[in-house]
Amino acid sequence: MRRIVIETKILKKNDEAALENRALLDRYGIPAVNFMSAPGAGKTSVLEHSLRSLKNELRFAVIEGDPATSFDAERIQALGVPSYQVTTGTCCHLDAKMVARALAQLQLEELDAVLIENVGNLMCPAEFNLGEQLRVMVYSCVEGAEKPKKYPVMFRTTHAVILNKIDLLPYTDVSLEELKRSVLEVNPTAVLFPLSCRTGEGVAEWVDWFRDAIVSMRTRVAVCA
Amino acid sequence: MRRIVIETKILKKNDEAALENRALLDRYGIPAVNFMSAPGAGKTSVLEHSLRSLKNELRFAVIEGDPATSFDAERIQALGVPSYQVTTGTCCHLDAKMVARALAQLQLEELDAVLIENVGNLMCPAEFNLGEQLRVMVYSCVEGAEKPKKYPVMFRTTHAVILNKIDLLPYTDVSLEELKRSVLEVNPTAVLFPLSCRTGEGVAEWVDWFRDAIVSMRTRVAVCA
Repeated sequence: MRRIVIETKILKKNDEAALENRALLDRYGIPAVNFMSAPGAGKTSVLEHSLRSLKNELRFAVIEGDPATSFDAERIQALGVPSYQVTTGTCCHLDAKMVARALAQLQLEELDAVLIENVGNLMCPAEFNLGEQLRVMVYSCVEGAEKPKKYPVMFRTTHAVILNKIDLLPYTDVSLEELKRSVLEVNPTAVLFPLSCRTGEGVAEWVDWFRDAIVSMRTRVAVCA
Repeated sequence: MRRIVIETKILKKNDEAALENRALLDRYGIPAVNFMSAPGAGKTSVLEHSLRSLKNELRFAVIEGDPATSFDAERIQALGVPSYQVTTGTCCHLDAKMVARALAQLQLEELDAVLIENVGNLMCPAEFNLGEQLRVMVYSCVEGAEKPKKYPVMFRTTHAVILNKIDLLPYTDVSLEELKRSVLEVNPTAVLFPLSCRTGEGVAEWVDWFRDAIVSMRTRVAVCA
């Protein structure tokens, strides 16, 4: 019972900070996108593909959450895209206050979107609203077809699910069709992108959708402002 | 600061409950083994292999931590091994109190060891002592060679690391040697078992080590008692 009370208080405080982040982003007319996954599913690879394809038409900055290293932030910087590193230590997720500190370091007036790479964790990050407009999950197909039902919270709260590493499927017992059914059973409105960051198969479809999503959120925010 | 105070209190309470679990297990002269990993790395498959090989010489029960389903508990029960399901909901790890409730349901006097399958999460479970004598991590090689440095806490606190899915390595850019170096850099005393639950390669070496570990802990506990 005490556990629930503490958790509720933490999440309420977080939601307040998330609303402030959202208000700040709205003032600049730009959306934030929260990328979540288990460790090693390919969030950074998806970001690399997306940024390589879109960085000449849209202006991005990336907030990188990582428990201990700056490996991912360095990969983003190598593409010439500004990135801000949040080292979370033993904290298993980004929270809205961490993101607020990162946003304060970015030149928001020069951006079209802020991309946030969360800590690799299939559970906790889903509970912490960061003020984002869009949630994208990256899932490694080789982790199995039943995981959406075992870890439903994140799958339920995401808008798009990238099913990465489809190139490895022929060497596993995992069925892509069963995996898709499993995701849609938990979240019937999720948009699915089976792809391989390694071979590039399916990446163009994701990039097209992502470009449209950013432009549409950008416009919508601008109209509201 | 407030976050740290709350976390410290939770972990202190947990450590007290873990000591009680350990004392209970010691009274029966049996060890508990905590299996941890990210989702889909293969904890249940490792348990299935281990139980199939050892269930006729050692008596096991399995405590299954799972956020939402009883899929894994059913796989264990199908082997004729008693399993106790702990549904954790949005809680991202097992804690010592959950394990205490499970231990109270087991016939400890009829067992040689209690195996605990933790929630699939590469971060939080590492911080929660359950009263176990041995920690085993299962890591999916396809998640990348650098993850031990990115998620060092669990790798640091484990005794053995099973490097699963080596059959997929030829189809990835991950180097097994680099992965091994990466684990040993974070935890120089870790015992490593590269294997494939799918093809069975390397499983016998793990099972032999695990049998010896259980027998040695069983004996040690019995001598102390």
